[in-house]
Amino acid sequence: MDIIKNSLGQSHDIVRQIVKEGDIVIDATAGNGNDTVFLAELVGDYGKVYSFDIQEMALEKTKEKLIKKGLLNRVNLINDGHQHMDVYVNDKVSTVIFNLGYLPGGDHNISTKGKSTKEAVEKSLELIKVNGIVAMVVYFGGDSGFDEKEEVDEYIKTLDNKKYVVMKTEFVNQINCPPILICIEKRYE
Amino acid sequence: MDIIKNSLGQSHDIVRQIVKEGDIVIDATAGNGNDTVFLAELVGDYGKVYSFDIQEMALEKTKEKLIKKGLLNRVNLINDGHQHMDVYVNDKVSTVIFNLGYLPGGDHNISTKGKSTKEAVEKSLELIKVNGIVAMVVYFGGDSGFDEKEEVDEYIKTLDNKKYVVMKTEFVNQINCPPILICIEKRYE
Repeated sequence: MDIIKNSLGQSHDIVRQIVKEGDIVIDATAGNGNDTVFLAELVGDYGKVYSFDIQEMALEKTKEKLIKKGLLNRVNLINDGHQHMDVYVNDKVSTVIFNLGYLPGGDHNISTKGKSTKEAVEKSLELIKVNGIVAMVVYFGGDSGFDEKEEVDEYIKTLDNKKYVVMKTEFVNQINCPPILICIEKRYE
Repeated sequence: MDIIKNSLGQSHDIVRQIVKEGDIVIDATAGNGNDTVFLAELVGDYGKVYSFDIQEMALEKTKEKLIKKGLLNRVNLINDGHQHMDVYVNDKVSTVIFNLGYLPGGDHNISTKGKSTKEAVEKSLELIKVNGIVAMVVYFGGDSGFDEKEEVDEYIKTLDNKKYVVMKTEFVNQINCPPILICIEKRYE
């Protein structure tokens, strides 16, 4: 079995370490619903997942998957941009997950964008508790994602080094732009 | 407890996953001996650690630590540059560890250098088995290490993407040049 996991696998390993039963967490990009299901399993019956997407189709897919697994009652599906997450979430959360890029199988023109992503990350950093994590898998390549990747790259360097640890993991010898993992941990409030 | 570990902590977590009792492994930079001790504990009574350093002082320190822990019989201490590791090691190994930079508390002018480090990494990649790992913690900052970091950075991008996965982890918002972690896994021989 391979030792070094891809960005998504590493992201899940980290999130699994922090999310406890009863936690409130956020999936900032519901997409095809896999991460919302993953989080819903982790938070248990008394936890809550807030799951955002601007595309109805994404929320429909996510809802279907949750129903199949009997997890729908653990999730609030919200059809709004993740930059407005603070309108819906008033409690501290242990993690916020992002998958940046377009919806797999969807329209490549409808994707997360640098500006709103930055706003959403800023709000996420306010919402997470100490030792909470913002975990972002940044998809780029082909016809899209490069501008957003650059903007996010620049932005994360500016985060207050006394409050946050920002880790960035890349796979540097691959040709097909494998996704990058960015994890931000809050060390002090 | 903090969730995101520093480069050394992450390196150890990965190495712990692969090294089994009885394995042959290499510490390419004995330094103050901590990694040699770490590896000697992992390989058990029937394993072997080959530990290289060009500085006698480093090997003396390492030897002392090993004697204190009763682990000296598991280690071959070799006073030669790691670029010659293939002269001493004829078996396949599961991991090669590097800590790049100068000896803590030693002379900053005697440090690992880009050219010999590259040669040593090339030899390491020959010596590791499939799913073996070369784990490098790259120290830089202050008066040294920048050239070597650049050279290693450029070199790892050129590794055959069919044979190797090359992961690079950085802490991008810190001011004091925290060490970088580079892990290379062999996927095919």
